[in-house]
Amino acid sequence: MIRHPAFPVEPWVVRETSLDLDALAQTESVFALANGHIGVRGNLDEGEPFGVPGTYLSGFYELRPMPYAESGYGFSESNQTVVNVTNGKIMRLLVEDEALDVRYGVLRNHERVLDLRAGVLERKLEWETPSGRLVRIASTRLVSFTQRAIAAILYEVEAVTEPTTVVVQSELVANESLPEPADGDPRVAAALRAPLESELFTEHDTRSVLVHTTHASRLTVAAGMDHVIDGAADTEHFVEGFADLGRLTVSATVKPGKPLRIVKFIAYGWSENRSVPALRDQVGAALAAARRDGWDGLVAQQAAYLKDFWDRADVEIDGDVELQQAARFALFHVLQAGARTERRAIAAKGLTGPGYGGHSFWDSESFVMPVLTYTMPDAVRAALMWRYDTLDLARERAKQLNLAGATFPWRTIGGEECSGYWPASTAAFHINADIAAAVSTYIAAVDDEEFERTAGITLLVETARLWRSLGHHRPDGTFRIDGVTGPDEYSALADNNVYTNLMAQRNLRAAADIVARHSLQAGELGANDEEAASWRDAAEKIAIPYDEALGVHPQAERFTEHAHWDFEATRPDQYPLLLHFHYFDLYRRQVVKQADLVLALQRCGEHFSAEEKARDFDYYERITVRDSSLSACTQAVVAAEVGHLELAFDYLCEAALIDLRDLMANTRDGLHIASLAGTWIALVCGFGGMRDQSLPLSFAPRLPAELTRLVFRICFQGRRLRVEVTRTHASYMLTAGAALEIRHYGKAAKVERRRRLTLPIPRAPRRDAPTQPRGRAPERRRPDAD
Amino acid sequence: MIRHPAFPVEPWVVRETSLDLDALAQTESVFALANGHIGVRGNLDEGEPFGVPGTYLSGFYELRPMPYAESGYGFSESNQTVVNVTNGKIMRLLVEDEALDVRYGVLRNHERVLDLRAGVLERKLEWETPSGRLVRIASTRLVSFTQRAIAAILYEVEAVTEPTTVVVQSELVANESLPEPADGDPRVAAALRAPLESELFTEHDTRSVLVHTTHASRLTVAAGMDHVIDGAADTEHFVEGFADLGRLTVSATVKPGKPLRIVKFIAYGWSENRSVPALRDQVGAALAAARRDGWDGLVAQQAAYLKDFWDRADVEIDGDVELQQAARFALFHVLQAGARTERRAIAAKGLTGPGYGGHSFWDSESFVMPVLTYTMPDAVRAALMWRYDTLDLARERAKQLNLAGATFPWRTIGGEECSGYWPASTAAFHINADIAAAVSTYIAAVDDEEFERTAGITLLVETARLWRSLGHHRPDGTFRIDGVTGPDEYSALADNNVYTNLMAQRNLRAAADIVARHSLQAGELGANDEEAASWRDAAEKIAIPYDEALGVHPQAERFTEHAHWDFEATRPDQYPLLLHFHYFDLYRRQVVKQADLVLALQRCGEHFSAEEKARDFDYYERITVRDSSLSACTQAVVAAEVGHLELAFDYLCEAALIDLRDLMANTRDGLHIASLAGTWIALVCGFGGMRDQSLPLSFAPRLPAELTRLVFRICFQGRRLRVEVTRTHASYMLTAGAALEIRHYGKAAKVERRRRLTLPIPRAPRRDAPTQPRGRAPERRRPDAD
Repeated sequence: MIRHPAFPVEPWVVRETSLDLDALAQTESVFALANGHIGVRGNLDEGEPFGVPGTYLSGFYELRPMPYAESGYGFSESNQTVVNVTNGKIMRLLVEDEALDVRYGVLRNHERVLDLRAGVLERKLEWETPSGRLVRIASTRLVSFTQRAIAAILYEVEAVTEPTTVVVQSELVANESLPEPADGDPRVAAALRAPLESELFTEHDTRSVLVHTTHASRLTVAAGMDHVIDGAADTEHFVEGFADLGRLTVSATVKPGKPLRIVKFIAYGWSENRSVPALRDQVGAALAAARRDGWDGLVAQQAAYLKDFWDRADVEIDGDVELQQAARFALFHVLQAGARTERRAIAAKGLTGPGYGGHSFWDSESFVMPVLTYTMPDAVRAALMWRYDTLDLARERAKQLNLAGATFPWRTIGGEECSGYWPASTAAFHINADIAAAVSTYIAAVDDEEFERTAGITLLVETARLWRSLGHHRPDGTFRIDGVTGPDEYSALADNNVYTNLMAQRNLRAAADIVARHSLQAGELGANDEEAASWRDAAEKIAIPYDEALGVHPQAERFTEHAHWDFEATRPDQYPLLLHFHYFDLYRRQVVKQADLVLALQRCGEHFSAEEKARDFDYYERITVRDSSLSACTQAVVAAEVGHLELAFDYLCEAALIDLRDLMANTRDGLHIASLAGTWIALVCGFGGMRDQSLPLSFAPRLPAELTRLVFRICFQGRRLRVEVTRTHASYMLTAGAALEIRHYGKAAKVERRRRLTLPIPRAPRRDAPTQPRGRAPERRRPDAD
Repeated sequence: MIRHPAFPVEPWVVRETSLDLDALAQTESVFALANGHIGVRGNLDEGEPFGVPGTYLSGFYELRPMPYAESGYGFSESNQTVVNVTNGKIMRLLVEDEALDVRYGVLRNHERVLDLRAGVLERKLEWETPSGRLVRIASTRLVSFTQRAIAAILYEVEAVTEPTTVVVQSELVANESLPEPADGDPRVAAALRAPLESELFTEHDTRSVLVHTTHASRLTVAAGMDHVIDGAADTEHFVEGFADLGRLTVSATVKPGKPLRIVKFIAYGWSENRSVPALRDQVGAALAAARRDGWDGLVAQQAAYLKDFWDRADVEIDGDVELQQAARFALFHVLQAGARTERRAIAAKGLTGPGYGGHSFWDSESFVMPVLTYTMPDAVRAALMWRYDTLDLARERAKQLNLAGATFPWRTIGGEECSGYWPASTAAFHINADIAAAVSTYIAAVDDEEFERTAGITLLVETARLWRSLGHHRPDGTFRIDGVTGPDEYSALADNNVYTNLMAQRNLRAAADIVARHSLQAGELGANDEEAASWRDAAEKIAIPYDEALGVHPQAERFTEHAHWDFEATRPDQYPLLLHFHYFDLYRRQVVKQADLVLALQRCGEHFSAEEKARDFDYYERITVRDSSLSACTQAVVAAEVGHLELAFDYLCEAALIDLRDLMANTRDGLHIASLAGTWIALVCGFGGMRDQSLPLSFAPRLPAELTRLVFRICFQGRRLRVEVTRTHASYMLTAGAALEIRHYGKAAKVERRRRLTLPIPRAPRRDAPTQPRGRAPERRRPDAD
């Protein structure tokens, strides 16, 4: 779907002007609506045709057994998989005696618009029945940011030429049949067939509620709907209930200019503890509240919520309107993934599709939270509180692994480890440092003393304990961390992965610092100055391998002595490599799936000189294939820092357009939330040059030739900072809060409220452009050609 | 089953004087009979009670799907699992109206004797029925070494006090129900339920044949039986056939001194290609041939075959009669595993049980063939020809793994890779060098020009190609082999494993040499002097890491920098460690499951100075836990070489008694054939000090205090060499063949036929005894106490 003609570029909306059935599954992901709590894919109102039908609830999963050809101690046994729950978005339509199905009759026109300011998905179509009747349908769908249990649909049907009898069936459907997953690709979640057992169904007047429980995980979900019907005088309705179906049937005559208008309110409630009647009543109450505010009320609340968000978070880009659109689309979906999780996980796909089984990974802390920390800090607090809530599971897992402290799962929904291949999961201990870094960053950016004294100190201490027990000292005092897997999944079980060790170092120091600041709370955790000193010592002596001969950092010890990958002999159809080459072959060679050492250059940049960064970046560019979506944004940031601005721009665009252009060819399974978050990272940390590892916040902005102006906004310690970057200057201004010290290209500066501080941007160093493996350079973007 | 009172020690038999039902499964393995082609466990004649019923055919398996929680490219998809085929050893007995079952009535006495010279299992029992009748039963069972398709039973039942009516039912039973496997231990083969589909059954007079095919692997097996009945005049019989049952029923009156005597001949034929009628006829013909020789003929052939074997291979030990017995028991079972495989695999458990799914591993080439090469070279030829037959599969696997040449499977029955956990299988490339070493050793020890020019050169060339493509050169010319797993399964995916690299070096050089010797055949394989030169270069420059600070060889690069295992904190019930600790934790620490670097000290000893060996051995003793049965014998050999003779003796005894004393607590699943072979290795290469990596053969014999004399015999290049070792001297003598040059403690010597060359044994160097991890020292053996 590269540069799809049906997607004209507009800065504040994503518009599709005709329906491409082959791209249906992809557009369902692109047009998905969510609030972090509930998510609905952009399936057509009438239910069919569909690519992947999907309605998801945060933290709602079924369990599947995990089989092993040869099992081993500590292998995960049970997989949590996101469930397609009761579908409340179905509005079937009968026109005279023809059911609306866009595959039949004539689709005169069809338009869908995702409005990023209104927070709604609009759809308009004109359909001529096979027998020649013409109707016009308009639907608007939202998932409310303000009433988190609620989604709503405004459905209007109107005759175009003559009075027409229509029947609308508004449904709740449980246990929809799903398409079979594509074979052979382990990344596609296994479809779950009929996961829901009926517990109860009720119906009354315009309302229906279905309650179901999953077979194995024993989670209960109640789904309800209520309606407001506005039609001609002859309009009639009745409601029915069955175990897996609730249905309101409305029949009416519609005339030109006299539409039948139905507002549908949909509510979900779910729990592992609450009873069936309690959940039934909970959705009933949510429906009543929504109905009281009415459609217009919900729409107004939604717009207000988004206005506030964009005021805080909008990024303005001059010079590339498609990138502008993509950046806002990306931020909108990051918001949708994280806004109202309220102590549940932010999944890799958000709530937009079944990919990765609905699991949350390190993506959440490493890519999504860096954005949310500065744009929607409450969402970060909620997501970190979810980690805190799962601490006992993580402690248990550490014990099982013969380690101290806590070991968080590589992939999970509920907190239990759900990985089935341990070298690329259990061994990827860096996730614990990633969580700790998210905690530290949040604490630094937000004045939240209560968090710091509860979840903050606990998470930092327990992860520091993990590192202290995972590493060991050599006779010369060096602290080594052996046999772990870094971010790059084309290496595994290596010694002293630089990213892991530097992040562990940060984790250990942060824990020692917070123990010093909060000795009372530390005492409750059994931590004291002696333990903190042992963390500081380990951090101080942590091994950071360096290849003197090459003058670069190996991503792990001896990495640079490994065999090279034969990129010349690798065909384009052999990417992603993991589907065409055995892990052993990938692991033993210098081929990199995704930024690893380069991620260390970004996140732990203070450990590298400018020249080291340039050499390291150049070295890893030559061997990084980006078979992961968690790479381009990092490469963009470091490319920008070392002076490869055009390359940085190309990587930024790849991160930003990953789903709008389906660059990984799997947007159908859901959006790449981390890559979308990476758009903001590439802009703010790349071209804005923002770094937050140590305070004051520092900036080193510099634009590529393609852009003339960049504006971004961040929330920081109760302030709001606006940064505007042009080719020659950067302007800093606070729109709220007290004066703030920052660093601009290493020099201290003070930013004040409503006063623009303009500073010059030095020239970029001139360096030869690095090369990438054959065929793996990012697409060279030419905004003019659009 | 330590020092079981029912096992008195005798040098040429293993005798059990009473029946212990709790040890039934173990004794079924100990009393298993096999000829390398068919194998029957020592199940009681009457079928029940049983521990694990088992009848196995070499190369006969069913396929099972291999599931993965997260699959990957090149993961094995289908598992070959040994099948318990049609059971022909059942002889049920009804005494008056009571069925013989040792759990009921009174078992007056019960004795089983495995006669290592006769090659038969004898059983005698007196049983009093619940109603008081007393019968005496004698059965003798053999699996013929001379007629490889044939097993036979002589079954005699006699009344002790008064005339008694008996009914004997001699059966063929397909699809016996099996006990459920013990849960949680991945090493126990999954039981296969009803694996056989009936194709045909016939019966006539005293004969019955059943033909079945496996569901998935589509292998067909015919099992037949015929009988000679000798009883009182009133003896009657009839035969019946069913899909899964053939049954001959004999009824007779037996009196004291007038037994009913039944000879049962059992024949098997199986194939993936031959038709059902062809296999039916094949077993019919085998039965006819056996019947023609008769019971006495089969028994006489068996004894002659074994006399010849013991003349060639017997090892005499003075000073420890239990060890003498164990050594012969071990050699007997090695013979049973390898004798008549005739181009099929030698499995880790031989044909004695379902353990490891009936798979063959590197054990075969690395532990069993070194024994067979010098005692039964034809068996080695046949087993290596099996590898040769599977070369196309190994070439395909290499291609799949992006490698040149051939990659042999880590575990298999038919030649396809059946491992379900690749870090400890696919990555254990050393198996290819182990196969090459077996080829080289066979070629050196046996004048077999034809083998050398066909299978020999092909196996060496294709494995050399593998190494050449698996390794790579560094800028300084070093040839590295990264990311592989050595013999020690508590490490994985390490760089430059010393054992692997030294064995690869040998492989590369052997291939280069054979190409030089046979340029015509090399040409047919596409090999030439240029390619051979590249093998020699790689071999010359192969990386052998060394830890200068410690003065020892790390088993793989940086191994000695890894964390130590906390042996003090490890409880005895936490062994084997792999069932109580996660692989990641084992892999990152200095804890060794089984000899790895120490195996290199034995097999590639020429690369280490005597002092290096002593230091290395000492270092690895401190961290080797022997959670594998493939370790004690190697530790015995190297302990003997470096002068720790008592320790060597203890390790020898552990290897030798592993199954007689059930030291690994899993003899029930089958015997540890490689450890039994290791008994010979510990004696001949340990206390005999034999080394064969380069010619002439060298010896450095030295006895421990516990032994006064050791005699062993080897076949070598058409000669037979007898070596006798006492405390002070070694005598070498040829009993057949032309004069032979050897080395004795490094000095050349010539051994002639029928002339005893006696040479003095130097004193052992005095070294402090090494220590082992807490609780993991071998049991100190006190032969006097027996």
